[in-house]
Amino acid sequence: MAAYYILLLSCFFYVGFCAFLDVVKEYDLMPLFRAVRDRDSYLRARNDILLEERNQRIGHDVILNQNEERVNGILMKFKELEINRSRTHGEPFPPSVNFLVGKPLVEKSQVFQIIKSMPKGAALHLHDTSMVDLHWLVQNVTYRDNCYMCLKKSYVYFNFFGGTPPSNPDCPWKSVREERAKATDVNEFDNLLYLNLTLITPDPAKAYPNINVVWTRFLQTFDQVGGLINYAPVFRDYFYEALNEFNMDNVQYLEFRGLLPKVYELNGTQLDKDWVMKTYHDGFVNFVAEHRNEFSGGKVIYSGLRIVPENDVLSQVKESIRFRQLYPNHFAGYDLVGQEDPGVPLLGYLDALLYPSEQTPPLDLPYFFHAGETDWQGTPTDRNLIDAVLLNTSRIGHGYALDKHPQIMKIVKQRNIAIEVNPISNQVLALVQDLRNHPAADLVAQDFPVVISSDDPAIWGARGLSYDFYMAFMALAGEDADLRLLKKLAINSIELSAMTQIEKNKAMNLWRQKWDAFIQKMLHQLNQSGGDVSSLFG
Amino acid sequence: MAAYYILLLSCFFYVGFCAFLDVVKEYDLMPLFRAVRDRDSYLRARNDILLEERNQRIGHDVILNQNEERVNGILMKFKELEINRSRTHGEPFPPSVNFLVGKPLVEKSQVFQIIKSMPKGAALHLHDTSMVDLHWLVQNVTYRDNCYMCLKKSYVYFNFFGGTPPSNPDCPWKSVREERAKATDVNEFDNLLYLNLTLITPDPAKAYPNINVVWTRFLQTFDQVGGLINYAPVFRDYFYEALNEFNMDNVQYLEFRGLLPKVYELNGTQLDKDWVMKTYHDGFVNFVAEHRNEFSGGKVIYSGLRIVPENDVLSQVKESIRFRQLYPNHFAGYDLVGQEDPGVPLLGYLDALLYPSEQTPPLDLPYFFHAGETDWQGTPTDRNLIDAVLLNTSRIGHGYALDKHPQIMKIVKQRNIAIEVNPISNQVLALVQDLRNHPAADLVAQDFPVVISSDDPAIWGARGLSYDFYMAFMALAGEDADLRLLKKLAINSIELSAMTQIEKNKAMNLWRQKWDAFIQKMLHQLNQSGGDVSSLFG
Repeated sequence: MAAYYILLLSCFFYVGFCAFLDVVKEYDLMPLFRAVRDRDSYLRARNDILLEERNQRIGHDVILNQNEERVNGILMKFKELEINRSRTHGEPFPPSVNFLVGKPLVEKSQVFQIIKSMPKGAALHLHDTSMVDLHWLVQNVTYRDNCYMCLKKSYVYFNFFGGTPPSNPDCPWKSVREERAKATDVNEFDNLLYLNLTLITPDPAKAYPNINVVWTRFLQTFDQVGGLINYAPVFRDYFYEALNEFNMDNVQYLEFRGLLPKVYELNGTQLDKDWVMKTYHDGFVNFVAEHRNEFSGGKVIYSGLRIVPENDVLSQVKESIRFRQLYPNHFAGYDLVGQEDPGVPLLGYLDALLYPSEQTPPLDLPYFFHAGETDWQGTPTDRNLIDAVLLNTSRIGHGYALDKHPQIMKIVKQRNIAIEVNPISNQVLALVQDLRNHPAADLVAQDFPVVISSDDPAIWGARGLSYDFYMAFMALAGEDADLRLLKKLAINSIELSAMTQIEKNKAMNLWRQKWDAFIQKMLHQLNQSGGDVSSLFG
Repeated sequence: MAAYYILLLSCFFYVGFCAFLDVVKEYDLMPLFRAVRDRDSYLRARNDILLEERNQRIGHDVILNQNEERVNGILMKFKELEINRSRTHGEPFPPSVNFLVGKPLVEKSQVFQIIKSMPKGAALHLHDTSMVDLHWLVQNVTYRDNCYMCLKKSYVYFNFFGGTPPSNPDCPWKSVREERAKATDVNEFDNLLYLNLTLITPDPAKAYPNINVVWTRFLQTFDQVGGLINYAPVFRDYFYEALNEFNMDNVQYLEFRGLLPKVYELNGTQLDKDWVMKTYHDGFVNFVAEHRNEFSGGKVIYSGLRIVPENDVLSQVKESIRFRQLYPNHFAGYDLVGQEDPGVPLLGYLDALLYPSEQTPPLDLPYFFHAGETDWQGTPTDRNLIDAVLLNTSRIGHGYALDKHPQIMKIVKQRNIAIEVNPISNQVLALVQDLRNHPAADLVAQDFPVVISSDDPAIWGARGLSYDFYMAFMALAGEDADLRLLKKLAINSIELSAMTQIEKNKAMNLWRQKWDAFIQKMLHQLNQSGGDVSSLFG
């Protein structure tokens, strides 16, 4: 009995002691401040804070070997130089300039040149029909037989027709070949076609005064090229070219949202989603077979438009479950796309989206929801972030509004839900002007599971992933963030992909080989330039 | 002995149990997700998250009484209406438009009208010579005897002279009275003078392409009016007018950074810092005596320019210690001001700034450092945030870069260091364009000790505190943030001021009276309009 009381007492004592420890813990920073009286202890305390913050960032756990450190030295010399050029000398800072006019500034950057040749791992947030540089559509596809164009309100639309095109009074079809032949300057003709399909404009702020205007124009560009890309032979080639361009940009794997659109043949045959999925599957398999030492493959995320009735979403969910079974290695899951602000919030599709988890046993369908791609805090769009995590999303597309949701941030960190950040997209599509104000900077500072992607690079004249990696490096992180950040972003992209563990291991091995080759190549270039960094990229 | 072992054992047991609890705590969100299978449990989990986030925001702890709830209803009706006007119908959203052109949009807002009549507590971040609407300088001061103007590179400068002005070949002095008499249109003449002293321009992005350009022009405006404000009789009147304007804007207390400049008299006498401090002291005392039921007073924060040699800072620190003893009720402490990016970082003044704490016993000098007013992460400017907290700052001016410093955020929260947020200033001075991207939104979402102030309202054509309160309400918080936020921001401003506890109690009592009167007035207006909210502000 006495022992029992002693046990009880000691427990009480311990509880008290724990509570006391908690108090001490809560005020653990206080001694720091009490101690800071003289210069030396001040500088020590300062260093501790700097170190503490360095140890919280993306890349803090990356250890560079001697060769990597040398490459890092080159990279950081350029980074400092380029930042100071703007910070001190007032030259435009590329991430602060709308990419629609700022692209040439990026291309002048040596940091960008290094990033281009760096193996960047995976691009996990792309869309099916905006992955390929539009120059390819113009220079290759519009030169093909049976290609027709028409002009509506000064915007050009395309289609292929086997015989005489049907009457189209709104927008009468003309042979591209004949129109091009009539042009006084073919290069100018082609360049006008190119510009007409992009958002590029000399004064973006004037052309696109708000997010609704730029999104309307943005969605229109998809319509303009739809008739080109959805023509079966082009569809296949387009996908090959997409893989090719990302591979050329040192991206070895990609996951993209696909609408799985209706594809047509000249004879009027309409090809369905199964044909599209098979085409993607074959495309991946063939491309990987041809580029075994360079490329790891990819997966499709089927995406409905967030404007359709809930029944359509349910059908798409069910189709996705079927595709997941049919193509376990090339079909990743489901998402909803389109401008988020006016779109139906995830909550509006709740029953359809809960369908897989409500079955017994639950059916396997990973989600990859776009969520919080908005500046409008406290609105249904903004709350898509809550629904995305409650619906057990594997990753979040954009998650631009995440910082304003401390509880969702906690969940995202705890469950390692990747945030797919697309800096240039957010700038061009009017969420933020100066990318140094992009909220993902906070996520980078706190080692959130961030991956960088390029969303719809073609539409704003970008290509591959390097432009967005450059923005992340220069604007979403501080002047002192170095190669460790870039390396970790590449590693993140593989680890946070929808690959199986075995696929990840394989992809990671390939990435490491490419990374080592990149480091060797950089050192070789440095040696060739006699150690003169400034002449590295001529 | 047995009892001892039992105690020891039970301690071990307890430690293990605590560790187990920690694990459970870390994964406390998991059951939430496991449980989410059907619609009902989903909606409950969703509501829990919404509630959890609501309970973390600024204002979450404010309980509104029935009358306040009614006023809140009016306020929120307008807020929703105005947000939807932009969100859905694409009208310009005032916080997204540079204030230099967007001011009229704010003034059309009913939310703004309500905020104007709301007692807002204290304005804690202001600067001595930019507190008064510049219309007053033009309409009152430039009409006084002995006032001269000159034009240099199309910018107007002023000075008072007792006799004939000295030769000034660069910028020859002319009598304002005579120049005005020559003007064909006096109103136009005065309006041109006004615009010439502000940053107002029809195309801010073009006029001020980067932060360095806008800061150069900004600092120039202080030079332009220096000769007006630093004339002794005007200096006194200017300060009275400042208190008057803020009082008229329902601000009852202010703390401002003062350079304690040299003030001149017509006979050439130069008045020193002691005269200036005495003038401020007398100004506060007299104004409060005249407005006992409206106004609580204020304090001066002496501010050096962050470009001077360290010796000057040391002298200023010592002078501040003296002023703190001389004027315990009207002198708050010390700060350093000027454009932070090119300025000397706090670390560069370390010895001077450590001086008070290095004395035995340490001398009393609270700091109120501007820190992190920058977009340049990872630079010395950005690290001023670290030095500000290590130097034991009482508040942080701007702290714009705070979000990028997770460790400093922790310290700031733990030690309740107020962040003085000046939304319009940050927009006009080129840190951020769309205020919905202002990083303080995260601080609001997490109930950081935030106060809203207006920095230099006169220079961009604002007045008092209401414009900035409006921006905070509409852009730094979600559509669903309500009267609770505004009330808490007012309460914060008093609690986080440099007032003593007794002064705070007194100020809080006065604020409560004013708040109750505001609620009564709003309800009265509502009753008079027969409950028709839309006609409230006719």
